Amino acid sequence: MTVGEPPKNLRDTLAGEEPLELRVGGASLAVTMRTPGADFDLAAGFLVSEGVITRTEELVTMRYCAGKDESGVNSFNVLDLMLADGVAPPDESVARAFFTTSSCGLCGKASIDAVRTRSAFEVRDDRLSVSTTFLASLPARLREAQRVFDKTGGLHAAGLFDGETGELLVLREDVGRHNAVDKVVGWALREGRLPLRGTILLVSGRASFELVQKAVMAGVSMLCAVSAPSSLAVDLAEESNMTLVGFLRDPSMVVYAGFNRVREDDDEDIARLDPH
Amino acid sequence: MTVGEPPKNLRDTLAGEEPLELRVGGASLAVTMRTPGADFDLAAGFLVSEGVITRTEELVTMRYCAGKDESGVNSFNVLDLMLADGVAPPDESVARAFFTTSSCGLCGKASIDAVRTRSAFEVRDDRLSVSTTFLASLPARLREAQRVFDKTGGLHAAGLFDGETGELLVLREDVGRHNAVDKVVGWALREGRLPLRGTILLVSGRASFELVQKAVMAGVSMLCAVSAPSSLAVDLAEESNMTLVGFLRDPSMVVYAGFNRVREDDDEDIARLDPH
Repeated sequence: MTVGEPPKNLRDTLAGEEPLELRVGGASLAVTMRTPGADFDLAAGFLVSEGVITRTEELVTMRYCAGKDESGVNSFNVLDLMLADGVAPPDESVARAFFTTSSCGLCGKASIDAVRTRSAFEVRDDRLSVSTTFLASLPARLREAQRVFDKTGGLHAAGLFDGETGELLVLREDVGRHNAVDKVVGWALREGRLPLRGTILLVSGRASFELVQKAVMAGVSMLCAVSAPSSLAVDLAEESNMTLVGFLRDPSMVVYAGFNRVREDDDEDIARLDPH
Repeated sequence: MTVGEPPKNLRDTLAGEEPLELRVGGASLAVTMRTPGADFDLAAGFLVSEGVITRTEELVTMRYCAGKDESGVNSFNVLDLMLADGVAPPDESVARAFFTTSSCGLCGKASIDAVRTRSAFEVRDDRLSVSTTFLASLPARLREAQRVFDKTGGLHAAGLFDGETGELLVLREDVGRHNAVDKVVGWALREGRLPLRGTILLVSGRASFELVQKAVMAGVSMLCAVSAPSSLAVDLAEESNMTLVGFLRDPSMVVYAGFNRVREDDDEDIARLDPH
């Protein structure tokens, strides 16, 4: 039994994790554990994912406040957000409203309906069409970009690609994959790029219902995951006309929904989930 | 470019995901997306993780209620829990209380103090001592046990091992790794096994602050993860005298905290995080 050399300074290689409290107009909205960095993107993306805002101008200011550590130094762990006049602030049931409807109790179908009702954007026929060869190349490009930022091995990554030019538009990382996606969505809001029609969002882990939900709320056309999706994630993608690709590991992939946006190259064979 | 054969029926291989609402005394406490199965374990473990209960008899009844789907069939997605007389029901701030203290705002140190204050159990000097060879064998044993339950590739696993006999006491799976750990902790509560002194909890993914928190609340002596821990996870493990092992991939591992419980076999070399 042999063991590889440990890194010179193990602690330097650990992924950072700190709590972040989001306040809207002074009232506490949520606390999440996140990797510090791109906090403004995270906060903005959280509000988009929760259906509170959809346009840059609806979020007037974001500033760090309170949250001093024992030596009185600002810990940069509390963000106060101010919404524009006329934007309804989120209420306490904001997260819960995604899962429940009065009509049919609590079930996957109700969760899907709730997301679709709350999303301001439709994942429309967007003429996005990408080849399987192009898709297969994305995970390596994400890892390559990650290498610059991340030496910890402990961070989830989310990368947004332009479906036409193939350009990596933005990469965000976090100990929580939902945070990594929120950071990408928040970046897009702040850049005035919502809805994200014609883009491909690639995540390093699994594709859960929650991640598809965030992609739907941002109008993303195609979500790709390196690992497996869940059944409800596939259902939501289908209902939303989003393309969902799982197990994207060059040279293979499985297309679970929205196959119309995927062009099969001649020399390839792609697994495809038939409609049920 | 070649692609492996797709499974015969892809939909059958998808990991299930449905919302579960937990109610205490009729009041809604939380909604989580989870893989159905072991719901009673999940609910009980959630209450332990949140510091609401620590003993079997504090949880009087659990029953499915409400939550009918469109055809009027119970969707088994709402659980009503009844606590014993004298047990304080969780308030709305239950989750938030873990991250904030009035004294020093919001920071990692405050989060650690909050967990340690709320935990009913100390991870004491428990005489647990395991060899690196034994630890290195655990991931394969977890995967082997998973193979029986899981053909989806989409589930996180959490397994609890007896540190003395080496026996796999319980395995639980879920699309969410926090749920998998809650299911293990809930199983332990219902079996009257808390605190889990002398046991080893192995998780299939990363070790975040949240997972160490759950282990601390259950009195687990050693937490092992197949992937990386976060910085705050290491800090919490250190402060709690818990042993934390990351990157546990036979034959290698990195011991981040509590090295005293790990015996190095003669022919091995183990990376160790020195105290800072």
